[in-house]
Amino acid sequence: MEFKYNVRDLKFILKEWLPTEEVLECDRFKDFYSIDDIEQILTEGYKICREVISPINVVGDRNPVTFENGVVTSPPGYKEVFQFIQKNGWGSSSECVEVEGGMPLIVFKSVFEMIAAACPAMGSNIKLTSGAANVIMNFGTEDDKKRFLPKMLSGEWQGTMNLTEPSAGSDVGDALAKAYPTDDPRIYKIKGSKMFITAGDGSICDNTIHLVLARPPQGCKGSAGLGLYIVPKFWVNEDGSVGNPNDVTTVAVEHKMGLKGSATCMLNYGEDDECYGIMLGTPPDEKGRSQGLAMMFRMMNESRIGTGHNANAQASSAYAQASQYALERVQGYIKGERVTIVKHPDVRRMLMDMKAHTEGIRAMIFKGYYSLDIAENSSDKAKAKKCEEIASILTPLIKCYGSETAVAMTCEAMQVLGGVGYTNEFPIEQSLRDSKILTIWEGTSFIHAQDLVKRKMRMDDGNPFVNWMADIRSFIDANKATAGLEKEFENLDMAYTCMDEVKKLYDLWHLNKSDELIGLYATRALFVCSQVVVAECLLEQALIAQRKIAELPGDHFDINFYKGKVASAKYYANNILPNVFNLTEILQNADLTNPEWPEESLIVN
Amino acid sequence: MEFKYNVRDLKFILKEWLPTEEVLECDRFKDFYSIDDIEQILTEGYKICREVISPINVVGDRNPVTFENGVVTSPPGYKEVFQFIQKNGWGSSSECVEVEGGMPLIVFKSVFEMIAAACPAMGSNIKLTSGAANVIMNFGTEDDKKRFLPKMLSGEWQGTMNLTEPSAGSDVGDALAKAYPTDDPRIYKIKGSKMFITAGDGSICDNTIHLVLARPPQGCKGSAGLGLYIVPKFWVNEDGSVGNPNDVTTVAVEHKMGLKGSATCMLNYGEDDECYGIMLGTPPDEKGRSQGLAMMFRMMNESRIGTGHNANAQASSAYAQASQYALERVQGYIKGERVTIVKHPDVRRMLMDMKAHTEGIRAMIFKGYYSLDIAENSSDKAKAKKCEEIASILTPLIKCYGSETAVAMTCEAMQVLGGVGYTNEFPIEQSLRDSKILTIWEGTSFIHAQDLVKRKMRMDDGNPFVNWMADIRSFIDANKATAGLEKEFENLDMAYTCMDEVKKLYDLWHLNKSDELIGLYATRALFVCSQVVVAECLLEQALIAQRKIAELPGDHFDINFYKGKVASAKYYANNILPNVFNLTEILQNADLTNPEWPEESLIVN
Repeated sequence: MEFKYNVRDLKFILKEWLPTEEVLECDRFKDFYSIDDIEQILTEGYKICREVISPINVVGDRNPVTFENGVVTSPPGYKEVFQFIQKNGWGSSSECVEVEGGMPLIVFKSVFEMIAAACPAMGSNIKLTSGAANVIMNFGTEDDKKRFLPKMLSGEWQGTMNLTEPSAGSDVGDALAKAYPTDDPRIYKIKGSKMFITAGDGSICDNTIHLVLARPPQGCKGSAGLGLYIVPKFWVNEDGSVGNPNDVTTVAVEHKMGLKGSATCMLNYGEDDECYGIMLGTPPDEKGRSQGLAMMFRMMNESRIGTGHNANAQASSAYAQASQYALERVQGYIKGERVTIVKHPDVRRMLMDMKAHTEGIRAMIFKGYYSLDIAENSSDKAKAKKCEEIASILTPLIKCYGSETAVAMTCEAMQVLGGVGYTNEFPIEQSLRDSKILTIWEGTSFIHAQDLVKRKMRMDDGNPFVNWMADIRSFIDANKATAGLEKEFENLDMAYTCMDEVKKLYDLWHLNKSDELIGLYATRALFVCSQVVVAECLLEQALIAQRKIAELPGDHFDINFYKGKVASAKYYANNILPNVFNLTEILQNADLTNPEWPEESLIVN
Repeated sequence: MEFKYNVRDLKFILKEWLPTEEVLECDRFKDFYSIDDIEQILTEGYKICREVISPINVVGDRNPVTFENGVVTSPPGYKEVFQFIQKNGWGSSSECVEVEGGMPLIVFKSVFEMIAAACPAMGSNIKLTSGAANVIMNFGTEDDKKRFLPKMLSGEWQGTMNLTEPSAGSDVGDALAKAYPTDDPRIYKIKGSKMFITAGDGSICDNTIHLVLARPPQGCKGSAGLGLYIVPKFWVNEDGSVGNPNDVTTVAVEHKMGLKGSATCMLNYGEDDECYGIMLGTPPDEKGRSQGLAMMFRMMNESRIGTGHNANAQASSAYAQASQYALERVQGYIKGERVTIVKHPDVRRMLMDMKAHTEGIRAMIFKGYYSLDIAENSSDKAKAKKCEEIASILTPLIKCYGSETAVAMTCEAMQVLGGVGYTNEFPIEQSLRDSKILTIWEGTSFIHAQDLVKRKMRMDDGNPFVNWMADIRSFIDANKATAGLEKEFENLDMAYTCMDEVKKLYDLWHLNKSDELIGLYATRALFVCSQVVVAECLLEQALIAQRKIAELPGDHFDINFYKGKVASAKYYANNILPNVFNLTEILQNADLTNPEWPEESLIVN
């Protein structure tokens, strides 16, 4: 089935909804991009996704990464496509904003969404390289930058992030990898094992630049004591030339349910005591604290949004396929006529459900990117600070709600196809398998739910969260009388009140140190906030679409797009948002069956 | 990871909850089984699932069915295990009640649940053979029975059901396969293509007995015109000996997301005009109506419950694995101590969620089987009739809610494991892939939702549905003052009122012929009814468990099981059941965004 994507919605976001020009006018971008470039960037990006990238998606699934005699081999075509993307400016060189011509997130990510949809395994390879390059760019010395970045950005080398170890998964602070000082104060010997390293090896590049968390001797216990080291697979000399192998051994690749085109590796560092890394940042302070994890998280903050985004991209792609199928497949009768299945009410319900969810979550995601763009690039410091806070609040919502919803949506897409959707004749079963990891990657759903209720609701005395809520309140007040959307705004108003209630409950639970309740209801609190903000975004978009419908002639080619935008908002507000009322009641009841339940009764023996 | 299963809950259902003796006292069973046999049957069944069946599950996944040079080969060990199950009385000979020593459904299915959990691909092979044998037993002549049944029950031959064709999926009535009369009034020439035929071929038996829906020349249009034919792969002579190949050609096997150990075949009948079938039932009547589909559906009614059951078995197995892992995996800290992850509130929430859902749905399923057992075997005709009605109402709930929930539960089990759950080191990713087809098999979720709102709510002037509701009402009234469960009964009471409201809405929509609303909200109406009945079942069980807790000493080895039963009911009533309030409000609002939405706006182009 040909790759199709909802590029029209991306154009709507950048050209009709978000104040994109505010971002493009920032000093960093103004000489490189104008709003008039958006159309072409998206059209061209869509074309390479269709023609170059999507064809290798199924290839990687059917010919997974192999590991034989210590050598990891990527699927056929992966090397060429990786290098095509990187060399032609669709990858890391555009994602790294400090590079001349680096794109704002809202622009880069609109193309990258289609790349992730066309081939998520390839998307990961690009993403990890950009991430590692961004860390070096932000925290490396000038020498480090010269040594590593040119080839990382050109497609010759790739990058990775090494956090997880066999006994340190969600709890990174338990990492056992060690960094031993040498005569050179910036060079450390690295020793340890890392697992689940995405793009950890493979045959797509000449060298791999690993960023590795490890604990120097003075490092304190826990995550604060971890330093961050640049550990190339092959040593890179100061002049940028490649030296000897650096004692980094691939021990295994994981056999995963999906993303089979991407090598998820277990790596041993320093088996022969000959692995060297270059320290990023400074040695531990007098309390043994390093900035290793903080440096990595600076890059991971955007990665978390990116993970929710990746999930939504796959759900959107599954929706696009399902919608095509529904238009073509003839089955069943209505009023005596054989019909295409799109005529059946439940098929329409499922398509609507996918459309509203993926568009609404996409809007929330791009609000996040916009906020990060302004936070990092605006000369208006007050505005930048506010946007940073907003991005910080949206991050766990996007990561958790985006990835959890994507799995449900790909399941729904398969349901539209019926039996054939369960076979590999159609790409949906691959999307389902590929996307499920995203509820786990970059912190599980629960970790993000805790981030919301323990940190984001409370940072800076809770003011940013209160301000964020106040903006939603103002939006409702300003628009609730909009003709044709009264009921939807009424629902949003009630849902807002629920969110306010949930926030107050959490204030109380924090005051009472009710740790069990705080943890137990965190995921549901996150769903409440997410569904409110998604509904708000969709209604913002519906207001624009309503105006367009009023302006355009009824037979205009684009009229159905705008009608569809209004419908997405209505559907979500009337069919999904009421879930918030329900969840809020459940939180208010604060059922404690869980903590009172004997642990033994939970286990099947 | 070793196969574990919640066999204790199955024993509770049969020995402590259901009036199992009522079934065992029926004439058909009383000479063969007593309540004292249950313990041994379950214990022994569990043992063979652990030792014989579960080891081949992963084998089938890693070495899928192959199709080369026209020959389908099943994975290593599948033939032996199939024959082991059939020869030793754990399969079709126990499932077919008319066989001497055939088991009641409640007994057979309690073992079969574990078989389906241990290896769902094998479960399907058994199930299809039982189904085909049951149809022949009910609708075949004495000669047919002698000719086919002995070897179908002994494991020498297998059976299949052939409904689907490339252009006739959900709408079976569009089938194009034809049956042409011959000189022998019971023998027809069969010609056509069938697809998605589970266990349609493979190397596990010497012969395959296909039951094929095809249209005779006098057959009217639609499903009513289809006849049903016994079409052996190799012709079976009247003396039961095997003759020549019968022109049934396997054209392809499907490449599926899961259930890779089971051959899903595309079969061509009569490519050389030499395919013969034996007619079951009678030729079409003067209006061209045959009983083909009705005969097959008689067997499929139980299959639909069986499909929901199969899904719940896999979810239960995933829950058992996740609970084990949570007890063993150390990660993170609570109050400064490293802990096993079962201590983390969200992990406990997920385990509770899986426990409550799988136990509650299991209870609903076994209420369905019990009702079928009484319906088919009781000498009390009034009671049998009532039970038939109850089974008929529960069937779509079990099939749709059971299968949809199972997918969510296996995802949740994977989430408990985190990254390793996404790899094939643990069986959960296979369970997720294997179980997803069950929302499609035996009628998609929407087909069952329509069955509920169009048929089951309205059959016999709606009286059976009203009576079924009245029984739930009586249960609530009789128990709502139960100490310790007041809140849970209050929730059930409110949920009951919601269900009543939904029923009235549907009465109104039927009266107004609001086809769009009837279809659009059918799945949600089904969820309302399902969640009410699951909560009711769990509360019935909790009443028993509460009494046990009061009787037993506090350190009794089984006390945590009973505490867990109460907890399941409480958790479901407080955390899941409130969803009913929400759904009911959505139905009451009857949002029509869907029908008003232009079809073009749903399609991504």
